[in-house]
Amino acid sequence: MTRLEKQMTFLEELDKLKQIGRQTYLCDGSRKENDAEHSWHCAVMALLLAEYAPEGTDAAHTAAMLLLHDAVEIYAGDTYAYDPEGKKTQRQREEAAAERLFGLLPEDQSRELRALWDEFEAWETKEAIYARALDCIQPTMLNNASDGRSWQEHGTRLSQVLHRNRRTHEASEELWAYQREHFIEPGVRKGRLIDDRNEEESHA
Amino acid sequence: MTRLEKQMTFLEELDKLKQIGRQTYLCDGSRKENDAEHSWHCAVMALLLAEYAPEGTDAAHTAAMLLLHDAVEIYAGDTYAYDPEGKKTQRQREEAAAERLFGLLPEDQSRELRALWDEFEAWETKEAIYARALDCIQPTMLNNASDGRSWQEHGTRLSQVLHRNRRTHEASEELWAYQREHFIEPGVRKGRLIDDRNEEESHA
Repeated sequence: MTRLEKQMTFLEELDKLKQIGRQTYLCDGSRKENDAEHSWHCAVMALLLAEYAPEGTDAAHTAAMLLLHDAVEIYAGDTYAYDPEGKKTQRQREEAAAERLFGLLPEDQSRELRALWDEFEAWETKEAIYARALDCIQPTMLNNASDGRSWQEHGTRLSQVLHRNRRTHEASEELWAYQREHFIEPGVRKGRLIDDRNEEESHA
Repeated sequence: MTRLEKQMTFLEELDKLKQIGRQTYLCDGSRKENDAEHSWHCAVMALLLAEYAPEGTDAAHTAAMLLLHDAVEIYAGDTYAYDPEGKKTQRQREEAAAERLFGLLPEDQSRELRALWDEFEAWETKEAIYARALDCIQPTMLNNASDGRSWQEHGTRLSQVLHRNRRTHEASEELWAYQREHFIEPGVRKGRLIDDRNEEESHA
Protein backbone atom coordinates (compact mmCIF):
# COMPACT_ATOMS: atom_id res chain seq x y z
CA MET A 1 0.00 0.00 0.00
CA THR A 2 1.10 3.55 -0.67
CA ARG A 3 1.47 6.00 2.19
CA LEU A 4 -1.79 7.71 1.30
CA GLU A 5 -3.63 4.39 1.01
CA LYS A 6 -2.55 3.53 4.55
CA GLN A 7 -3.71 6.91 5.81
CA MET A 8 -7.07 6.61 4.09
CA THR A 9 -7.51 3.05 5.37
CA PHE A 10 -6.94 4.32 8.89
CA LEU A 11 -9.36 7.24 8.39
CA GLU A 12 -12.03 4.90 7.09
CA GLU A 13 -11.50 2.52 10.01
CA LEU A 14 -11.92 5.46 12.40
CA ASP A 15 -15.50 5.76 11.14
CA LYS A 16 -16.32 2.90 13.52
CA LEU A 17 -15.81 5.20 16.52
CA LYS A 18 -19.24 6.65 15.65
CA GLN A 19 -20.71 3.31 16.69
CA ILE A 20 -18.98 2.92 20.03
CA GLY A 21 -21.65 3.85 22.54
CA ARG A 22 -21.04 5.62 25.82
CA GLN A 23 -23.20 5.61 28.95
CA THR A 24 -23.83 9.36 28.90
CA TYR A 25 -27.07 10.75 27.46
CA LEU A 26 -27.21 13.80 25.20
CA CYS A 27 -28.25 16.97 27.03
CA ASP A 28 -31.91 16.46 26.06
CA GLY A 29 -31.84 12.83 27.23
CA SER A 30 -33.07 11.52 23.88
CA ARG A 31 -30.32 8.95 23.42
CA LYS A 32 -26.81 8.07 24.58
CA GLU A 33 -23.87 9.69 22.84
CA ASN A 34 -21.06 7.89 21.06
CA ASP A 35 -17.28 8.19 21.19
CA ALA A 36 -16.94 10.30 18.03
CA GLU A 37 -19.44 12.86 19.32
CA HIS A 38 -17.80 12.91 22.74
CA SER A 39 -14.35 13.36 21.19
CA TRP A 40 -15.62 16.24 19.07
CA HIS A 41 -17.26 17.92 22.04
CA CYS A 42 -14.14 17.59 24.21
CA ALA A 43 -11.87 18.96 21.44
CA VAL A 44 -14.07 22.05 21.06
CA MET A 45 -13.97 22.52 24.84
CA ALA A 46 -10.16 22.36 24.76
CA LEU A 47 -10.09 25.33 22.37
CA LEU A 48 -12.83 27.38 24.04
CA LEU A 49 -11.68 26.96 27.65
CA ALA A 50 -7.94 27.27 27.04
CA GLU A 51 -7.68 30.39 29.18
CA TYR A 52 -8.37 28.27 32.29
CA ALA A 53 -5.66 25.67 31.53
CA PRO A 54 -2.24 25.82 33.22
CA GLU A 55 -0.04 28.59 31.83
CA GLY A 56 1.73 27.54 28.65
CA THR A 57 -0.71 24.72 27.84
CA ASP A 58 -0.88 24.04 24.09
CA ALA A 59 -4.62 24.01 23.41
CA ALA A 60 -4.26 22.70 19.85
CA HIS A 61 -2.16 19.78 21.07
CA THR A 62 -4.76 19.10 23.75
CA ALA A 63 -7.51 19.15 21.12
CA ALA A 64 -5.57 16.68 18.95
CA MET A 65 -5.18 14.40 21.97
CA LEU A 66 -8.90 14.58 22.69
CA LEU A 67 -9.85 13.90 19.07
CA LEU A 68 -8.09 10.57 19.34
CA HIS A 69 -8.13 9.68 23.06
CA ASP A 70 -10.91 7.12 22.68
CA ALA A 71 -9.97 5.76 19.23
CA VAL A 72 -8.65 2.48 20.65
CA GLU A 73 -12.19 1.73 21.82
CA ILE A 74 -12.99 0.79 18.21
CA TYR A 75 -11.47 -2.58 19.12
CA ALA A 76 -11.42 -2.45 22.94
CA GLY A 77 -14.96 -1.13 23.46
CA ASP A 78 -15.99 1.63 25.86
CA THR A 79 -15.34 0.87 29.52
CA TYR A 80 -17.85 2.71 31.71
CA ALA A 81 -16.04 5.03 34.11
CA TYR A 82 -17.68 3.38 37.12
CA ASP A 83 -17.36 -0.28 36.07
CA PRO A 84 -14.72 -1.89 38.35
CA GLU A 85 -14.74 -5.26 36.50
CA GLY A 86 -14.23 -3.69 33.08
CA LYS A 87 -11.51 -1.45 34.51
CA LYS A 88 -9.40 -4.49 35.46
CA THR A 89 -8.85 -5.60 31.89
CA GLN A 90 -9.14 -2.16 30.28
CA ARG A 91 -5.42 -1.39 30.00
CA GLN A 92 -4.56 -4.73 28.40
CA ARG A 93 -7.46 -4.58 25.94
CA GLU A 94 -6.61 -1.03 24.97
CA GLU A 95 -2.89 -1.72 24.53
CA ALA A 96 -3.66 -4.46 22.02
CA ALA A 97 -6.18 -2.20 20.29
CA ALA A 98 -3.64 0.61 19.99
CA GLU A 99 -1.14 -1.73 18.32
CA ARG A 100 -3.73 -2.85 15.81
CA LEU A 101 -5.33 0.53 15.08
CA PHE A 102 -2.27 2.76 14.88
CA GLY A 103 -0.48 -0.04 13.01
CA LEU A 104 -2.66 0.78 9.99
CA LEU A 105 -0.78 4.07 9.56
CA PRO A 106 2.64 4.73 8.01
CA GLU A 107 5.28 4.12 10.68
CA ASP A 108 6.02 7.76 11.53
CA GLN A 109 2.36 8.61 12.07
CA SER A 110 1.76 5.35 13.86
CA ARG A 111 4.45 6.37 16.36
CA GLU A 112 3.05 9.92 16.65
CA LEU A 113 -0.49 8.81 17.39
CA ARG A 114 0.69 6.17 19.80
CA ALA A 115 2.73 8.83 21.60
CA LEU A 116 -0.32 11.10 21.75
CA TRP A 117 -2.42 8.32 23.26
CA ASP A 118 0.37 7.35 25.70
CA GLU A 119 0.64 11.00 26.75
CA PHE A 120 -3.08 11.08 27.55
CA GLU A 121 -2.86 7.84 29.48
CA ALA A 122 0.26 8.88 31.42
CA TRP A 123 -1.55 11.98 32.77
CA GLU A 124 1.70 13.89 33.29
CA THR A 125 2.01 16.78 30.82
CA LYS A 126 -0.02 19.97 31.21
CA GLU A 127 -1.89 19.06 28.05
CA ALA A 128 -2.77 15.59 29.35
CA ILE A 129 -3.93 17.01 32.70
CA TYR A 130 -6.10 19.57 30.90
CA ALA A 131 -7.40 16.95 28.43
CA ARG A 132 -8.34 14.51 31.17
CA ALA A 133 -10.14 17.23 33.13
CA LEU A 134 -12.27 18.01 30.07
CA ASP A 135 -12.86 14.29 29.50
CA CYS A 136 -14.46 14.29 32.99
CA ILE A 137 -16.26 17.65 32.78
CA GLN A 138 -17.97 16.93 29.45
CA PRO A 139 -20.00 13.90 30.63
CA THR A 140 -20.81 15.61 33.94
CA MET A 141 -22.20 18.57 31.97
CA LEU A 142 -24.34 16.16 29.92
CA ASN A 143 -25.41 14.21 33.00
CA ASN A 144 -26.54 17.39 34.71
CA ALA A 145 -28.42 18.59 31.63
CA SER A 146 -30.15 15.24 31.13
CA ASP A 147 -31.44 15.15 34.74
CA GLY A 148 -28.75 12.69 35.82
CA ARG A 149 -30.32 9.90 33.82
CA SER A 150 -27.13 7.90 33.39
CA TRP A 151 -26.13 8.42 37.04
CA GLN A 152 -29.52 7.15 38.15
CA GLU A 153 -29.47 4.15 35.83
CA HIS A 154 -26.13 3.13 37.30
CA GLY A 155 -26.81 4.12 40.92
CA THR A 156 -23.71 6.30 40.77
CA ARG A 157 -22.40 7.62 44.09
CA LEU A 158 -20.91 11.03 44.70
CA SER A 159 -17.66 9.49 45.90
CA GLN A 160 -17.21 7.83 42.49
CA VAL A 161 -17.61 11.13 40.66
CA LEU A 162 -15.24 12.85 43.08
CA HIS A 163 -12.68 10.09 42.73
CA ARG A 164 -12.83 10.27 38.96
CA ASN A 165 -12.38 14.04 39.19
CA ARG A 166 -9.65 13.90 41.81
CA ARG A 167 -7.17 15.70 39.56
CA THR A 168 -9.54 18.06 37.71
CA HIS A 169 -8.45 20.91 40.01
CA GLU A 170 -4.87 20.50 38.77
CA ALA A 171 -6.02 21.53 35.30
CA SER A 172 -8.00 24.47 36.64
CA GLU A 173 -9.35 25.42 40.05
CA GLU A 174 -11.93 27.58 38.25
CA LEU A 175 -13.25 24.77 36.04
CA TRP A 176 -13.29 22.42 39.00
CA ALA A 177 -15.29 24.89 41.12
CA TYR A 178 -17.70 25.42 38.24
CA GLN A 179 -18.17 21.71 37.72
CA ARG A 180 -18.82 21.16 41.43
CA GLU A 181 -21.25 24.05 41.76
CA HIS A 182 -23.17 23.65 38.50
CA PHE A 183 -22.98 19.97 37.60
CA ILE A 184 -22.20 17.83 40.65
CA GLU A 185 -23.86 19.55 43.65
CA PRO A 186 -27.22 19.94 41.84
CA GLY A 187 -27.08 16.19 41.14
CA VAL A 188 -26.66 15.51 44.85
CA ARG A 189 -29.36 18.00 45.91
CA LYS A 190 -31.88 16.53 43.49
CA GLY A 191 -31.07 12.94 44.50
CA ARG A 192 -29.63 11.97 41.11
CA LEU A 193 -26.26 11.16 42.62
CA ILE A 194 -26.16 9.08 45.80
CA ASP A 195 -24.67 11.19 48.59
CA ASP A 196 -22.31 8.82 50.40
CA ARG A 197 -20.24 11.51 52.13
CA ASN A 198 -21.34 10.39 55.59
CA GLU A 199 -20.65 6.70 55.01
CA GLU A 200 -17.50 4.85 56.04
CA GLU A 201 -14.39 5.84 54.10
CA SER A 202 -14.13 2.21 52.94
CA HIS A 203 -17.24 2.56 50.81
CA ALA A 204 -15.75 5.42 48.81
CA MET B 1 -23.73 35.76 33.39
CA THR B 2 -20.05 35.34 34.15
CA ARG B 3 -17.61 34.73 31.33
CA LEU B 4 -17.39 31.03 32.18
CA GLU B 5 -21.18 30.70 32.39
CA LYS B 6 -21.44 32.09 28.87
CA GLN B 7 -18.81 29.67 27.62
CA MET B 8 -20.48 26.70 29.27
CA THR B 9 -23.89 27.76 27.93
CA PHE B 10 -22.42 27.80 24.43
CA LEU B 11 -20.75 24.42 24.93
CA GLU B 12 -24.00 22.90 26.17
CA GLU B 13 -25.91 24.41 23.23
CA LEU B 14 -23.33 22.83 20.86
CA ASP B 15 -24.54 19.42 22.07
CA LYS B 16 -27.44 19.87 19.62
CA LEU B 17 -25.08 19.44 16.67
CA LYS B 18 -25.17 15.71 17.49
CA GLN B 19 -28.79 15.74 16.38
CA ILE B 20 -28.37 17.53 13.06
CA GLY B 21 -28.55 14.73 10.52
CA ARG B 22 -26.61 14.61 7.28
CA GLN B 23 -27.44 12.69 4.11
CA THR B 24 -24.27 10.58 4.19
CA TYR B 25 -24.36 7.05 5.59
CA LEU B 26 -21.67 5.65 7.88
CA CYS B 27 -19.16 3.43 6.07
CA ASP B 28 -21.13 0.29 6.97
CA GLY B 29 -24.40 1.85 5.75
CA SER B 30 -26.15 1.21 9.07
CA ARG B 31 -27.41 4.77 9.55
CA LYS B 32 -26.77 8.34 8.45
CA GLU B 33 -24.12 10.34 10.25
CA ASN B 34 -24.68 13.62 12.07
CA ASP B 35 -22.85 16.94 12.00
CA ALA B 36 -20.85 16.37 15.19
CA GLU B 37 -19.50 13.05 13.89
CA HIS B 38 -18.73 14.58 10.50
CA SER B 39 -16.93 17.53 12.12
CA TRP B 40 -14.86 15.19 14.26
CA HIS B 41 -13.93 13.03 11.26
CA CYS B 42 -12.92 16.04 9.16
CA ALA B 43 -10.81 17.51 11.97
CA VAL B 44 -8.88 14.26 12.36
CA MET B 45 -8.33 14.20 8.59
CA ALA B 46 -6.93 17.73 8.74
CA LEU B 47 -4.25 16.57 11.17
CA LEU B 48 -3.47 13.26 9.48
CA LEU B 49 -3.31 14.52 5.89
CA ALA B 50 -1.52 17.82 6.58
CA GLU B 51 1.49 16.81 4.48
CA TYR B 52 -0.66 17.08 1.33
CA ALA B 53 -1.95 20.60 2.09
CA PRO B 54 -0.38 23.69 0.48
CA GLU B 55 3.01 24.55 1.96
CA GLY B 56 2.70 26.54 5.14
CA THR B 57 -0.88 25.45 5.89
CA ASP B 58 -1.65 25.53 9.61
CA ALA B 59 -3.20 22.12 10.24
CA ALA B 60 -4.32 22.93 13.78
CA HIS B 61 -6.12 26.06 12.55
CA THR B 62 -7.74 23.98 9.82
CA ALA B 63 -8.86 21.42 12.39
CA ALA B 64 -10.37 24.17 14.56
CA MET B 65 -12.24 25.50 11.53
CA LEU B 66 -13.56 22.03 10.75
CA LEU B 67 -14.65 21.38 14.34
CA LEU B 68 -16.98 24.37 14.06
CA HIS B 69 -17.73 24.74 10.34
CA ASP B 70 -21.21 23.24 10.62
CA ALA B 71 -22.13 24.59 14.07
CA VAL B 72 -24.57 27.15 12.63
CA GLU B 73 -26.66 24.23 11.38
CA ILE B 74 -27.92 23.82 14.96
CA TYR B 75 -30.37 26.60 14.04
CA ALA B 76 -30.16 26.65 10.24
CA GLY B 77 -30.39 22.89 9.65
CA ASP B 78 -28.23 20.85 7.26
CA THR B 79 -28.58 21.79 3.61
CA TYR B 80 -27.88 18.79 1.41
CA ALA B 81 -25.00 19.54 -0.95
CA TYR B 82 -27.10 18.72 -3.99
CA ASP B 83 -30.35 20.49 -2.99
CA PRO B 84 -30.71 23.60 -5.24
CA GLU B 85 -33.82 24.91 -3.44
CA GLY B 86 -32.26 24.71 0.01
CA LYS B 87 -29.07 26.28 -1.33
CA LYS B 88 -30.97 29.47 -2.29
CA THR B 89 -31.83 30.39 1.30
CA GLN B 90 -28.82 28.72 2.96
CA ARG B 91 -26.63 31.80 3.32
CA GLN B 92 -29.36 33.92 4.87
CA ARG B 93 -30.44 31.17 7.28
CA GLU B 94 -26.86 30.50 8.32
CA GLU B 95 -25.99 34.18 8.84
CA ALA B 96 -28.86 34.53 11.29
CA ALA B 97 -27.86 31.31 13.00
CA ALA B 98 -24.25 32.48 13.38
CA GLU B 99 -25.41 35.71 15.06
CA ARG B 100 -27.55 33.75 17.49
CA LEU B 101 -25.11 30.91 18.24
CA PHE B 102 -21.83 32.79 18.53
CA GLY B 103 -23.71 35.54 20.39
CA LEU B 104 -23.89 33.18 23.37
CA LEU B 105 -20.14 33.55 23.90
CA PRO B 106 -18.19 36.38 25.51
CA GLU B 107 -17.61 39.08 22.90
CA ASP B 108 -13.97 38.28 22.09
CA GLN B 109 -14.68 34.60 21.51
CA SER B 110 -17.87 35.40 19.66
CA ARG B 111 -15.78 37.48 17.21
CA GLU B 112 -13.09 34.78 16.96
CA LEU B 113 -15.53 31.99 16.14
CA ARG B 114 -17.44 34.17 13.73
CA ALA B 115 -14.13 34.97 11.98
CA LEU B 116 -13.30 31.27 11.81
CA TRP B 117 -16.66 30.50 10.22
CA ASP B 118 -16.38 33.47 7.84
CA GLU B 119 -12.92 32.25 6.83
CA PHE B 120 -14.31 28.83 5.96
CA GLU B 121 -17.17 30.37 3.99
CA ALA B 122 -14.91 32.84 2.12
CA TRP B 123 -12.78 29.94 0.79
CA GLU B 124 -9.69 32.13 0.35
CA THR B 125 -6.99 31.22 2.87
CA LYS B 126 -4.88 28.07 2.47
CA GLU B 127 -6.53 26.69 5.58
CA ALA B 128 -10.02 27.30 4.22
CA ILE B 129 -9.15 25.72 0.86
CA TYR B 130 -7.72 22.67 2.65
CA ALA B 131 -10.68 22.51 5.07
CA ARG B 132 -13.24 22.68 2.28
CA ALA B 133 -11.46 19.96 0.32
CA LEU B 134 -11.67 17.66 3.35
CA ASP B 135 -15.31 18.62 3.86
CA CYS B 136 -15.88 17.20 0.34
CA ILE B 137 -13.57 14.20 0.56
CA GLN B 138 -14.98 12.88 3.85
CA PRO B 139 -18.55 12.27 2.58
CA THR B 140 -17.24 10.87 -0.71
CA MET B 141 -15.15 8.37 1.27
CA LEU B 142 -18.24 7.38 3.24
CA ASN B 143 -20.41 7.23 0.14
CA ASN B 144 -17.95 4.92 -1.57
CA ALA B 145 -17.65 2.68 1.50
CA SER B 146 -21.44 2.46 1.93
CA ASP B 147 -21.98 1.37 -1.70
CA GLY B 148 -23.11 4.83 -2.78
CA ARG B 149 -26.33 4.51 -0.84
CA SER B 150 -26.87 8.23 -0.36
CA TRP B 151 -25.93 8.98 -4.00
CA GLN B 152 -28.45 6.42 -5.18
CA GLU B 153 -31.21 7.65 -2.90
CA HIS B 154 -30.77 11.14 -4.31
CA GLY B 155 -30.08 10.17 -7.94
CA THR B 156 -26.82 12.09 -7.71
CA ARG B 157 -25.00 12.80 -10.98
CA LEU B 158 -21.26 12.76 -11.52
CA SER B 159 -21.34 16.38 -12.68
CA GLN B 160 -22.74 17.43 -9.30
CA VAL B 161 -19.93 15.71 -7.42
CA LEU B 162 -17.34 17.20 -9.78
CA HIS B 163 -18.82 20.67 -9.41
CA ARG B 164 -18.80 20.40 -5.65
CA ASN B 165 -15.16 19.28 -5.83
CA ARG B 166 -14.13 21.88 -8.40
CA ARG B 167 -11.51 23.38 -6.08
CA THR B 168 -10.37 20.23 -4.25
CA HIS B 169 -7.28 20.09 -6.48
CA GLU B 170 -6.20 23.51 -5.17
CA ALA B 171 -5.82 22.00 -1.73
CA SER B 172 -3.90 19.01 -3.05
CA GLU B 173 -3.51 17.42 -6.48
CA GLU B 174 -2.62 14.18 -4.69
CA LEU B 175 -5.76 14.08 -2.55
CA TRP B 176 -7.89 15.04 -5.55
CA ALA B 177 -6.39 12.25 -7.66
CA TYR B 178 -6.94 9.77 -4.83
CA GLN B 179 -10.53 10.85 -4.35
CA ARG B 180 -11.22 10.53 -8.09
CA GLU B 181 -9.58 7.13 -8.42
CA HIS B 182 -10.78 5.50 -5.20
CA PHE B 183 -14.08 7.16 -4.35
CA ILE B 184 -15.65 8.78 -7.41
CA GLU B 185 -14.71 6.61 -10.42
CA PRO B 186 -15.75 3.36 -8.67
CA GLY B 187 -19.13 5.00 -8.02
CA VAL B 188 -19.51 5.71 -11.72
CA ARG B 189 -18.31 2.25 -12.81
CA LYS B 190 -20.73 0.50 -10.46
CA GLY B 191 -23.66 2.71 -11.50
CA ARG B 192 -24.02 4.38 -8.10
CA LEU B 193 -23.38 7.82 -9.54
CA ILE B 194 -25.19 8.79 -12.75
CA ASP B 195 -22.60 9.34 -15.46
CA ASP B 196 -23.74 12.49 -17.25
CA ARG B 197 -20.43 13.30 -18.89
CA ASN B 198 -21.83 12.83 -22.39
CA GLU B 199 -24.93 14.95 -21.83
CA GLU B 200 -25.29 18.61 -22.75
CA GLU B 201 -23.14 20.98 -20.72
CA SER B 202 -26.31 22.75 -19.61
CA HIS B 203 -27.34 19.76 -17.50
CA ALA B 204 -24.23 19.98 -15.37
